[in-house]
Amino acid sequence: MIGLIVREWKILQDPDHVTADDFFYSGLHIASETSKQLGAFTNLLTVDSIPGLNTNGLSIVRIDYEANGGLNPPHHHPRASEILTVLEGTLYAGFITSNPDHRVFAKVLKAGDVFVFPFGLIHFQLNVGKNPAVAIAAFNSQNPGVVTTANTVFGASPSINPDVLTRAFHLDKDLVTKLQRQEWVNPSDLNSYS
Amino acid sequence: MIGLIVREWKILQDPDHVTADDFFYSGLHIASETSKQLGAFTNLLTVDSIPGLNTNGLSIVRIDYEANGGLNPPHHHPRASEILTVLEGTLYAGFITSNPDHRVFAKVLKAGDVFVFPFGLIHFQLNVGKNPAVAIAAFNSQNPGVVTTANTVFGASPSINPDVLTRAFHLDKDLVTKLQRQEWVNPSDLNSYS
Amino acid sequence: MIGLIVREWKILQDPDHVTADDFFYSGLHIASETSKQLGAFTNLLTVDSIPGLNTNGLSIVRIDYEANGGLNPPHHHPRASEILTVLEGTLYAGFITSNPDHRVFAKVLKAGDVFVFPFGLIHFQLNVGKNPAVAIAAFNSQNPGVVTTANTVFGASPSINPDVLTRAFHLDKDLVTKLQRQEWVNPSDLNSYS
Amino acid sequence: MIGLIVREWKILQDPDHVTADDFFYSGLHIASETSKQLGAFTNLLTVDSIPGLNTNGLSIVRIDYEANGGLNPPHHHPRASEILTVLEGTLYAGFITSNPDHRVFAKVLKAGDVFVFPFGLIHFQLNVGKNPAVAIAAFNSQNPGVVTTANTVFGASPSINPDVLTRAFHLDKDLVTKLQRQEWVNPSDLNSYS
Amino acid sequence: MIGLIVREWKILQDPDHVTADDFFYSGLHIASETSKQLGAFTNLLTVDSIPGLNTNGLSIVRIDYEANGGLNPPHHHPRASEILTVLEGTLYAGFITSNPDHRVFAKVLKAGDVFVFPFGLIHFQLNVGKNPAVAIAAFNSQNPGVVTTANTVFGASPSINPDVLTRAFHLDKDLVTKLQRQEWVNPSDLNSYS
Amino acid sequence: MIGLIVREWKILQDPDHVTADDFFYSGLHIASETSKQLGAFTNLLTVDSIPGLNTNGLSIVRIDYEANGGLNPPHHHPRASEILTVLEGTLYAGFITSNPDHRVFAKVLKAGDVFVFPFGLIHFQLNVGKNPAVAIAAFNSQNPGVVTTANTVFGASPSINPDVLTRAFHLDKDLVTKLQRQEWVNPSDLNSYS
Repeated sequence: MIGLIVREWKILQDPDHVTADDFFYSGLHIASETSKQLGAFTNLLTVDSIPGLNTNGLSIVRIDYEANGGLNPPHHHPRASEILTVLEGTLYAGFITSNPDHRVFAKVLKAGDVFVFPFGLIHFQLNVGKNPAVAIAAFNSQNPGVVTTANTVFGASPSINPDVLTRAFHLDKDLVTKLQRQEWVNPSDLNSYS
Repeated sequence: MIGLIVREWKILQDPDHVTADDFFYSGLHIASETSKQLGAFTNLLTVDSIPGLNTNGLSIVRIDYEANGGLNPPHHHPRASEILTVLEGTLYAGFITSNPDHRVFAKVLKAGDVFVFPFGLIHFQLNVGKNPAVAIAAFNSQNPGVVTTANTVFGASPSINPDVLTRAFHLDKDLVTKLQRQEWVNPSDLNSYS
Repeated sequence: MIGLIVREWKILQDPDHVTADDFFYSGLHIASETSKQLGAFTNLLTVDSIPGLNTNGLSIVRIDYEANGGLNPPHHHPRASEILTVLEGTLYAGFITSNPDHRVFAKVLKAGDVFVFPFGLIHFQLNVGKNPAVAIAAFNSQNPGVVTTANTVFGASPSINPDVLTRAFHLDKDLVTKLQRQEWVNPSDLNSYS
Repeated sequence: MIGLIVREWKILQDPDHVTADDFFYSGLHIASETSKQLGAFTNLLTVDSIPGLNTNGLSIVRIDYEANGGLNPPHHHPRASEILTVLEGTLYAGFITSNPDHRVFAKVLKAGDVFVFPFGLIHFQLNVGKNPAVAIAAFNSQNPGVVTTANTVFGASPSINPDVLTRAFHLDKDLVTKLQRQEWVNPSDLNSYS
Repeated sequence: MIGLIVREWKILQDPDHVTADDFFYSGLHIASETSKQLGAFTNLLTVDSIPGLNTNGLSIVRIDYEANGGLNPPHHHPRASEILTVLEGTLYAGFITSNPDHRVFAKVLKAGDVFVFPFGLIHFQLNVGKNPAVAIAAFNSQNPGVVTTANTVFGASPSINPDVLTRAFHLDKDLVTKLQRQEWVNPSDLNSYS
Repeated sequence: MIGLIVREWKILQDPDHVTADDFFYSGLHIASETSKQLGAFTNLLTVDSIPGLNTNGLSIVRIDYEANGGLNPPHHHPRASEILTVLEGTLYAGFITSNPDHRVFAKVLKAGDVFVFPFGLIHFQLNVGKNPAVAIAAFNSQNPGVVTTANTVFGASPSINPDVLTRAFHLDKDLVTKLQRQEWVNPSDLNSYS
C-alpha cells in the first residue's frame, strides 16, 4: 500500500545523523534463488532500502532468471520509466504500446544490451537462453511501484467479481474462479520454493 | 503510438487563429452504442479532440455501459489519475493496489457517486444494474493513454511469445494461442457490432 | 488559508486503515439551493472531502445555477486548469486572456457541451436560459483554490486601502468604500438566503 | 495570447549561434515614465526579451511608481510566484488569500525590504510616499503572465455580457457599461500619456 | 546538510498564526563587510529566512563586492537557475557550459545590466571596477543550495583522498595537501576578517 | 552546448517509423580504453544515443577505471541524480555536500555495491584496487549533462580571467595560467592516448 499513498516523499532522520551508509547498499552481485512459479526473482532497491534515495528520484533492481524460460512476467510501473542492462544470458524483452494499437517493441538481448521501457507501459523479459540470465535496471522514481499484470487481476484480495475477468479476458467463469483461487507469486516474493 | 511518443506536448496553430471552438466540444450528452464484446463504450476527449487542452493537463471521457453487465474492463492510464462521477445507473467500480498486496478498493456506485482511481493503478467498472449506466471521468493529463489489460497482453501485435503468457497467467499454451488469435475490442472501438 | 500554505501535500492516515470510502463521495447528483446574491452554488470536492485525492492531482465541482441569470462570477484557480461539462441548461461561459490583450473566448453551452478554462485565467458562467442549469467540472490539482475576483478585492479582510481600488477600477472613493462594507457571498457559501 | 498558448517552451536558435548576449539585458537602471492612469510602469523581461531564459524558469521586472499614489494595481500571475525588493521609496504592498477568507497580508515597505507574493494570488503595490519609488521583482517562470484584475474584466475584448459584471461586482448596469467603454491602461503599456 | 536532505519542502506553522511578517524581510539595502579572502559577501534569503517562500519556489541574494577584485568565486546551484541584476559597479560575470565544450559566456556588466546563469552550471562574478559593486539575484527554488567549486573540493571535511585532486587538477600532491589544510571561506561566511 | 539549450525535449521521428531499435543499445559489456590523463573512460548513453529515452527521463553510463588510480574526477550533473553499481573492482567513491559544510560522504565500494549521488552535488570515484574496475550508473534525466569540475574552470574556452581562478583556488597566477594552457581531457573523450 505504501506505493499508493506516499508516492514520492518520505522524511529522513535528523540530518546530523545521516552517514554514507544511508546512500549505500551492498549485495547486488549476489544471485538470488528464483521461484518455481516464475523462474525469476527481482531484488528491488527503493527508498525503503536506501534512505538517501529520498528526493533523488531513482531506484534500481537486480533480476535473476533461471535457464530456459525464467520469466519476469508482464507488469508496469505506475510511477516510472525503466532502463535495463543485461549482464549475463539471453533475454527476449519487450513492451506493448497503449490502446488502440498494442504494438509490440521487442528484441532478443545479450550481455551488454540496453533496452528502454517507456513510462507506465506493460513490459516483460523471458530467458530464452540455456543458461541463467542476470539484468539490472534503473527507474526514475524513488518508489516506482510494480503492478504484475496477471497477479494483480487474478490474485486481487479480496477477489474481484469474476464477471469482470470472464468478460475482459474471454475466459470461462469456471476457469476464472479457479485462477482466482491459485497462489500468485510476485517476482520479488521470497518464497522461492513455491 | 501517439501516447508513447508525445506524452504531454503538442504545438497549437498560430495564436492569432485560435478561437473559442479550440476550447470546446459538443456531444457528451449523447449515448453511444456499446460493443457486443464488452457492452461498453468510451468517448475519450484528449488534446487531439480539444486543442485548447494543450499545456492544460486535463482530459475527459464519457462511458456508456449496457444493462446487466456492461464492462469497462481492467485497464490503467500510464500518465494520469482519474476521478469518475456516475450520472445514471449502478456500477461496481474499483482499483487494485500494486505488488505485493493487490488489495482491492471497490464500491457499488449510484448516480451522484464519485470515485478516485490513483495514478497508474489498474481499475474497472461493471454495470451491475438492470438499466444502462453512464459515467463521466476526468484525467490530469492532456493525453492520459489507456492500457486495457487483457487486450494489451493477448491482443498485442505481433503476438508476443506465448511462453510469456502461459507462465504469467497459469494457462495452457493452447488456450493462450487461441486467445491470441481472437479479436480484442477496445472500449473506444467504434465497431460496435463486433 | 489552507490553499496558501499547503498547496499539494497532505498526510493521509495509516495506510492499514485506508478503505474504499477514502476514495469515495456520494451526493453529486443533488441540486443545491443557490444564494440570492449570485444565484449559483458550487460544491467543490478537494482532498479535504476525498482523502484519496492526496497526491493524485485532481478535484471536482458541481455547480448549480438558478434560472435566468444564475452566475458563477469571474474567478480564477491559482493552482489548476479546469474542464467543464454542462449537464442541464444553457450557459454563457468564457475566459479572458492575460495582458495586454484581454481577449474573450466565450460560447453559449448546452447539455453535453464541454469547455476548457486554461491554467490561472479568469473565467465565468452565466445561466442565460429559462431553466436551472447544472454543470460539473474537474481540476488538475487536489487543492485548486478559488479566487472570486470581485469578492477578493472588495471583500478583503481587513479592507485594503481604498485608494488602490479607486484608481484600479476607475470608481469614486465613496462607491469603493460602500462596496467594501458590503457582504460578499462566495459561490460555495452555504448561507443560501443571503 | 502567447502566455496562453506557449506557457513554458520556446525553441532557441541554433546552439552554435548562441552568444552571451542571449543571456543579457541592459537598461534596468533606467526609470520609465509612468502612465497618467495608474502612475506606474512595469518593464517585464521574459523569455521574449532574454532568450537565454528559455527552460530556466525565471523572469524579472522593474516597476516605477510616481510619487503620492503611483499604483501597480491588483493583478495575479497565472504561472508564477513573485519576490519583490524595494530599491527606493515607500510602498504599501500586499496580497489577498483565496476563498473563503480573502485575508489580507500587507506591509509598508521601504528600501531594502523584500516581500513574497504566493503563486497565483492577487496582489498590489501603492506608492504611499512623497517621492517616486522603484522596485524589482523576480518570477519563477520564463513567461509568468500578468492578469490585471480590473482591466481584464472591464476591458475585455469583446466586452463580456454586462450582466456578469453587474451581479459579480454589485454595480449598476449603467456604470458597468460605462466602465466597459473606457480605456484600461495596463501597467506595461507604453502610452505613458494616456 | 539541509539542502541535501530537505530540498523543497518544509512545514509552516499553523496557518492561523501566519502573518505578513512571514512573507517579509528587511535589510537588503545594507552593504555587508566583505571577507579578506574573497572580497565579497553574499546575503542569501531562502525559506529559512522567509517562511512564506515555502512552496513558492523562489529565493533571493544580495552580493557585495569590494573594489578592485572582489570575487563571487566559481560555484553552482544544484537546484536552481539564477537571474542577476547589477545595482552598482562593474562586474565581469559569466558561466561555463558542460562537457565537452566548456564554452564561456561572459560579459562586463554595469548598473542596470541583467545576466542569466542557466540551471546547474558553474558561474562567477569579479569586480573589475575601482568602486565597490552590488548585485541582487533571484533563484527559482526556495532552497537553491550553493556549491562553491574550490571550497567544496579542497575544503571538504574530512579531506578527500589527495590522489583524486592531484590527478583531477594536474597539481603536485604537496600543493594539494597544502591547499587541503587551508581555511576556505565561503561567500556567505560572516568571518569577514579572515 | 546541447545540454544547455535543450534540457529535456527533443522531437522523435514519425511514430510510424519508430522501431524497437530506437529503444535499444548494444555494447555496454565492452571495456573501453582509458585515457592516460585520467585513467578512466565514460560511455554515456543519453537520448542522443537512444531516441526512445525521449520523455522517459533516464540515461545510463558505463565507466571503466584502469588499475591503481583510474579516476572519474570530481564532477556534477546539472540536471540529474545518479545511482551507481560496481560490477568489478574496488572504488573509493563519494560526494560532497553544499556550502557551508562541504561534508564528505564516501565509501570503498566492491562488486555489487550501490551508491547514490544526490541531485547536483559534486562526486567522484577512484580505483583504489590493483585491477581494472567497472561500474554502471543511471541518471534521472534523458540528458543529465556532465560538468567536470577542474576541466570546466581551468579548461574553459576562451580562458576565463585568471584573477578569478587565482583568488578562488588560492593559487599563484603563474600556475593558473600554466594550467589554463594545458589540455583537459574529459572522461568521455575518445583520445585515449592523450
